[in-house]
Amino acid sequence: MVAMYTGLAEGKDKPTRRALSKTKNSPFTASTILPAGPSAWPFNALRGLAVHRRSHAPPVISWSSRMKKILACSLVLLTASALADEGMWTPGQIPALAERLESMGLEIEPGKLTNLTGHPMKAVVSLGGCSASFVSPRGLVVTNHHCAYGSIAHNATDANNLLRDGFRPETLADEVPARPGSRVLVTVEVRDVTNRVLGELPPDLDGRERYLAIEKTGKELVRECEQDPGHRCRVASYHGGANYELIKQLEIRDVRLAYAPPASVGKYGGDVDNWMWPRHTGDFAFYRAYVGPDGAPADYHADNVPYAPDHWLALEPEGIEDGEFVMVAGYPGRTNRYRLADEVRNVIDWSYPERKRVYEEWLDRIESATAGNPDAALKYASLVAGLNNASKNYGGMLQGFAKGDLVERKQALEAELQIWVDADPGRASGYGRAIAELRELVARQQTTQVRDFYYSLARRGALLGAATTLYRLAREREKPDAEREPGFQERDALRIRERMDRIDRSFDAAVDRAVWKHLILTYAAIPADQHVAEFDRLFGIDGNTVDPAALDALLAGLYEGTELDRAEVRREAMEYSVAELETSDDPFMKLAVALYDSDRSLEEQSETLAGLLQEARPRFMEALLAFQRDRGKVIYPDANGTLRITFGTVSGSAPADGLRYLPFTTLEGILEKDTGEEPFDTPPELLQAIRTGDYRGHGDDAIGSVPVNFLSTVDSTGGNSGSPTINGRAELVGLLFDGTYES
Amino acid sequence: MVAMYTGLAEGKDKPTRRALSKTKNSPFTASTILPAGPSAWPFNALRGLAVHRRSHAPPVISWSSRMKKILACSLVLLTASALADEGMWTPGQIPALAERLESMGLEIEPGKLTNLTGHPMKAVVSLGGCSASFVSPRGLVVTNHHCAYGSIAHNATDANNLLRDGFRPETLADEVPARPGSRVLVTVEVRDVTNRVLGELPPDLDGRERYLAIEKTGKELVRECEQDPGHRCRVASYHGGANYELIKQLEIRDVRLAYAPPASVGKYGGDVDNWMWPRHTGDFAFYRAYVGPDGAPADYHADNVPYAPDHWLALEPEGIEDGEFVMVAGYPGRTNRYRLADEVRNVIDWSYPERKRVYEEWLDRIESATAGNPDAALKYASLVAGLNNASKNYGGMLQGFAKGDLVERKQALEAELQIWVDADPGRASGYGRAIAELRELVARQQTTQVRDFYYSLARRGALLGAATTLYRLAREREKPDAEREPGFQERDALRIRERMDRIDRSFDAAVDRAVWKHLILTYAAIPADQHVAEFDRLFGIDGNTVDPAALDALLAGLYEGTELDRAEVRREAMEYSVAELETSDDPFMKLAVALYDSDRSLEEQSETLAGLLQEARPRFMEALLAFQRDRGKVIYPDANGTLRITFGTVSGSAPADGLRYLPFTTLEGILEKDTGEEPFDTPPELLQAIRTGDYRGHGDDAIGSVPVNFLSTVDSTGGNSGSPTINGRAELVGLLFDGTYES
Repeated sequence: MVAMYTGLAEGKDKPTRRALSKTKNSPFTASTILPAGPSAWPFNALRGLAVHRRSHAPPVISWSSRMKKILACSLVLLTASALADEGMWTPGQIPALAERLESMGLEIEPGKLTNLTGHPMKAVVSLGGCSASFVSPRGLVVTNHHCAYGSIAHNATDANNLLRDGFRPETLADEVPARPGSRVLVTVEVRDVTNRVLGELPPDLDGRERYLAIEKTGKELVRECEQDPGHRCRVASYHGGANYELIKQLEIRDVRLAYAPPASVGKYGGDVDNWMWPRHTGDFAFYRAYVGPDGAPADYHADNVPYAPDHWLALEPEGIEDGEFVMVAGYPGRTNRYRLADEVRNVIDWSYPERKRVYEEWLDRIESATAGNPDAALKYASLVAGLNNASKNYGGMLQGFAKGDLVERKQALEAELQIWVDADPGRASGYGRAIAELRELVARQQTTQVRDFYYSLARRGALLGAATTLYRLAREREKPDAEREPGFQERDALRIRERMDRIDRSFDAAVDRAVWKHLILTYAAIPADQHVAEFDRLFGIDGNTVDPAALDALLAGLYEGTELDRAEVRREAMEYSVAELETSDDPFMKLAVALYDSDRSLEEQSETLAGLLQEARPRFMEALLAFQRDRGKVIYPDANGTLRITFGTVSGSAPADGLRYLPFTTLEGILEKDTGEEPFDTPPELLQAIRTGDYRGHGDDAIGSVPVNFLSTVDSTGGNSGSPTINGRAELVGLLFDGTYES
Repeated sequence: MVAMYTGLAEGKDKPTRRALSKTKNSPFTASTILPAGPSAWPFNALRGLAVHRRSHAPPVISWSSRMKKILACSLVLLTASALADEGMWTPGQIPALAERLESMGLEIEPGKLTNLTGHPMKAVVSLGGCSASFVSPRGLVVTNHHCAYGSIAHNATDANNLLRDGFRPETLADEVPARPGSRVLVTVEVRDVTNRVLGELPPDLDGRERYLAIEKTGKELVRECEQDPGHRCRVASYHGGANYELIKQLEIRDVRLAYAPPASVGKYGGDVDNWMWPRHTGDFAFYRAYVGPDGAPADYHADNVPYAPDHWLALEPEGIEDGEFVMVAGYPGRTNRYRLADEVRNVIDWSYPERKRVYEEWLDRIESATAGNPDAALKYASLVAGLNNASKNYGGMLQGFAKGDLVERKQALEAELQIWVDADPGRASGYGRAIAELRELVARQQTTQVRDFYYSLARRGALLGAATTLYRLAREREKPDAEREPGFQERDALRIRERMDRIDRSFDAAVDRAVWKHLILTYAAIPADQHVAEFDRLFGIDGNTVDPAALDALLAGLYEGTELDRAEVRREAMEYSVAELETSDDPFMKLAVALYDSDRSLEEQSETLAGLLQEARPRFMEALLAFQRDRGKVIYPDANGTLRITFGTVSGSAPADGLRYLPFTTLEGILEKDTGEEPFDTPPELLQAIRTGDYRGHGDDAIGSVPVNFLSTVDSTGGNSGSPTINGRAELVGLLFDGTYES
C-alpha cells in the first residue's frame, strides 16, 4: 500500500505510453528573466558553472550573491513527430546506432554514450522515480519541480509555505534536508548476469518454485554487490526475463533542497495545463548531494560536504533551435510495448477506464475531506497531483486508443509471428506454443484483476499500511537475512525507517479516515466473489452490504485507539518481535496480524503466476526478437528503471487537422494566460519584465523572444521526468518534464 | 417578444464583434466527397451550373439524377490576421479603395462592385438576418445550413426528421416551402435621401417629436418606393443618423427548400465546435426562389416557376489557396464600432455577463422542459441554437475584452478628438459639446437597461406575444395607414400573418409555460424599482415576492383558457376590431389589453430618448469623421443590414503563443473527430470514403487532401452568415459561416 502511495506521490510515475510519446522538457537555453539589481538566478548560476567546467576552474558560485531573487525559468518540451525517433536504448546498444545518430547530429563520439563512468553518462542520475543530472562540481543536481515536489511540500508549513513562495537559501548552510528517503543514485556498473540467474535453474520447477529460485539468486547477487559500502544494487530483467543485468549504483543519501521556484512558476498552469501544449511551466528545482567529509555516502550530518561528482553537465548558453538534434538520458520507469493484443485490449476495456473513474472519485473525496483545512491540503498535495496526473493520462491514452488500431496491429503481428515460427521446424519446436501459452497465462491473470485492484484500494489506510509493514518485517526478521523477502532485508531497514517517518508529512487522521472509508466502500461494491473473505470478516462486509454505522464505529475505534500515528512509536515497533506485535493492543496492528495469513496466500498465488510468466514471456520475446532480427529490425528492451538514452530533434507537431504546435513557447504566452489566479498567477515582477520586453540578454533571435518550453521528438515515459535534454555536444539545453495529451 | 425569438431563430444574428473579427466560411472549392455510383451532390450540380453559365447554355440540371445521395461538403472559414483587412464597405466606397484592392488581388474592374444591378453584386441576396447568393439561372440560392435551419426544422417531423437526415428532393416538385416568412431579397436600388429626411425637420422639436417626424418621412419614402409591386423598401440610417439611404429590394416570397445535408454534416461539431477552430462543418443548404408564371413575386402556388435571376455566381472548381485574395459580399446586421468608451464599458461590465448568465439559465430550463420529448425538442432547436451561440459569443467577447484595452483606447481617442475640436473655433462651435451630450444620453439610457432587458424576458410567453401583436394591430388599424406604427401598416399584414402561422412550429404549451415561468421569476428577482407596475399587478408580483402557487394557478388558467394556441384563431383575430378584442374572453388577450397603456408609456419614453440620440450621435459621428479625414483615414459606416463588401486573404492565424491555426482543414480531420455520437457522428459512407482516400477528383495538391473549411482575414458580423466568399475574379469559393472564438 505504502509503496503504491509513495510511487504516485514521489515519482509522478506516469503510466506507460506507446512509442512515439510526445514529451516535454523543462528548459534553460537563453531563457531567463531577472529582476533589476545585482541579483541573479539559478540559470545564471548554471551558466557560470558551465564556463567553469570548461576551464576546469574551481567553483566560485556564491549563493548569497546569486540566489536572492528568482522570478521565472524558461522551459522546454518535446514532441514526437516521427516513428523514427522511437526507442529507449540501453547504453550498450549505442554502437549499433552510431551511424544514424551521427547523421542526426550527434557530435561527440557515439562510444562515449556507452561508457557509464565517463562524460556525459555519469552525470545522469536517478532520484528513484525521477531522473536528474549533476550540473556543478559541488554536487548541484537539477530535476523537475514536480520531482522535488514532495521535498518542497515536506519543508513547507502554513507560516513558511515553500510550495507557494519557493525556496531560495542564501548560503549552503541554509539548504534543508529533502524528504526522508530522498536519494541521488549514480550508476557505476552494469553487468550481464543472465547465466547466473537462469543457467543454474533446475528443470521442472513449478511456477512458485521458479519465481523463488530467481529471487534467491537475485538476492545473492545483490548481497555480493553491496559488499562495496555506499552502494545499492539490483538485478534488472530485460525482455520479460530473457536477460538479467546487475546494476550497481552509488547511493547518496544526504540530499538537500537547494532551490525551488514558487508554484506560480514551477507548477504554472497546474492540472489545467498538464499534458497540454502550449505550455509555460518552469518545472525545475535543484537538489544538492552531500557526502561525509571522507567523500563517502553518509546519513545527514551538519559536517557533511557537497559531493564532488566526476562529471557534470555544462549548460549550453545559446540554447537550442528548431530542428536541432537532442538526446535525453534518464531512467524511464516502465513501458509495456511488447504486450500481447489481449493485454492491450484489457487495458483499453478495463484497466484504464476503471482506474480513471476510481481515481477521479478518490480525488473528489480528498478534496471534500481537506476543504477548509490548508494544512491537510498541503499534506495531500503530492497524492492529489499524482492522481490527477494519472487520471488525465488515462483519459488521453483512451482517446488515443479509440482513434488508433493498436489491438488490430498487435493481432496482425502475432499472426505473422506465428506463421514465421511455424514455417521452420526448429523454430516451431522452440516457440510453436509461445504465443498461446503466454495468452493462457494472461487470461488467468485477468481473472483476479478486479480483486487485486480493489483490494489494494481497500488496504490503503496509511496506518494499516504501516502496521502491515511492521508485522511483515518482524516475521521476515525471524529468518536468516538472505532468505527474507526482498524489501525486508537488513539492507532495507533504513528505507523502511524513512518510510515510517515520512507518514507524518502526508497523513491527517481525519482525511485518511474519510478517504479510506470511501475506498473500503468502493471495494465493497465490486462483485462479492472478488472479495477477500478475511478482510470482509474484519470489516463487517456481507456480500455487497456494509452497515455504515458499524463501519464508522470500527474506523473510529481504529483511529482513536492507535498509537501508530506517532513516528516514534512506528520507529520503535521496527524492533519488536512477532510475539510482541501479536500481543499488541494497537487496533491497526491487530488488523495487520489478522490479515497476514490471508495476504500471504494471495501473495503465493501471485508468485506462482509470476514464475510461470517469467518462463513464458521470455520465450515469446525470444521468438519476437528472432523474428524482428530476421526482418532487419533492432529492438530496444522495455523500460525497466535502468539508464536509457533516447534521441530526436526539436520539432513542433500536428496534433489535429488544421492545428499546429510550434516547437517553442515564449514569455509573451505567460501574459496571454495570466489570470492573476492559481494556476495562472504569474509573479508580478515577472509580468512587469515581460510587459516591458525586458529580456536581460536572454532573447532568442529565431523566435523573437525568450523561449519558455520546447517540444521535441524524443521517446519518454514516467521516470524520465527531470532527465537532462542535451544537444549533440552533450551540453544541457533543457529538462524533460511532460508529454503531450495527444501522444 | 416574437420578434426577438425570430431574430435568434432565423438569423442566428450574432452580436456585434470588434473589427478584425475572424470569420469562417462554408466552402466549396474542390471539396466534395461522393458516394460510389451514378449519384452526385449539389456541389457537383453547382459546378455544372458554373460551366453552363460561362457558356450561356441553358440549365440542364436534373435533380433526379444528381441529388440522390449527398454525403458531405467542404467548407471554408476565414480569420483576421491584419488590421488592414478591417472594413465593411458600402458598394459606393469601392472606387476609393480601387488601388488597394487591385494590389491585394482583385482582378475584375473595381467599379463593377459599385454597380448593384450588375455582376456580381446582384447575385448577392439577403434572407433577412442571413446572406446568400444565386448560383444558378433557375433561382437556386446557397446559404448556410444554420440560416436554413428554421426551414429545415419547420419541415421536420418525428417520422421524417429532415434535421437529422437531411433533405434531397428528387425533382423540383419535391421541393418544399421554406418556413413561413422566408424571403429572398434582391437589392435593386440604393438612393441617398438624407436631405428629404433631415432637411425638412422643423427646428426646436423635442426628442419624441423629432423621432416621430423622422419616422413619418421614412414611411412616406417607403410608401412611394413600394408603389412598384413586388418590392420591399426601407430607409437605412448611417453613422447613427448622419445619412439616410432608401433601399429598394425585390421581395421574392415563394421560397422553397431545395437541399439540406444531414445535421451530422451541416451542424457537424454542433455547439462544441461553434466559434472554434479547427472546424469541419458542412454549413450549407440550398433554397430555390420561385415567382409567378409572369416572373413577378407571388405567394406560394403550385404553378409558380423558378425565378430567373439576371446574375448568379459561378463556382471556381479549382478552389482557393493559402494567401489568395478573397472578398465577401453580404448583409452584415449591426456593428457598434464607433460607440463611446462609456458604452463599451457597460457592455463589458453589464450587458454581456448579464445576458450570458440569463441565456445559460434559460437554456437549462428549455433542456429540462423538453427532456424526453423529442417532438418538443425539435420545436425549440432553433431557439436553443441561437441562445447557445449568443452565450458562447458573449463568453469569447468578454475574454477578448479582458485581455485588451478597448475602453482605454476609446477614452484616448475621445480625448484626442476633443482636443482637435477645441483647437478650432469653427469646430468648437459645431462639435464642442458633441461628446459630452452623447455621454449624457448614454448614461440616461443605462438607467433603465435592467428594466428594459428583464421586462422583455418577462413578456416572452409566445401567446402573450401573439395577443400583444394582435391587439396592437387592431389599435393601429384605427388610424390611416400612413400614420400607423411601422410594422403594423398594410404592407406588414402578410408578415404578421406568417408570424402568427409560424408560432405552431416552435411552440409547445408545456415547454412554453415552464420556460416563461422561469423568465417571469427571473424578472421578479431584479430590484423592485426596475419593475413595471402594471405587469407586477397582473402577475401578483409584490416587490421581489411571488406566490409560486398563485403564479402556477394564473399560468394554468392562461394556457387552459386560451384559444390563441390555434393558428386559425390567431389568423381570424387579425381582422378583429379593438372593441371585439377588448371584450374577448381569451385570457392572453385580456393580459395584452391590460398591458397596452403601460407598454405605450414605456414606448414613448424610449422614443423620446431615441429622438435625442438621433440628433446627438450624428453630431459626434460628424466630428469623428472630420477628425479622421483630417488624419487621412477613410471610415466605413457601422453595419446596418445593408449590402457591404469586405476584403481579405486566405490565411491561418496565431491564436495563442506556441499555437497556429492552419488556413485549411481536411477530410482526415473528420476521422480524427469522429466519435459516432452527435455532434461528431459522421455518416458512415463518408467515413468509409475518407478512410479509403476516395477523394473522387476533389483533392487539392497544396494540402494533400480535400479542403473542408478555411480561414481568411475578412471582416464580418452576424447577418454575414451565408455570404458568398468570392475570389478576385468574382467566382464563388466558399460560404462564410462563423468567426473564431479568439477574435
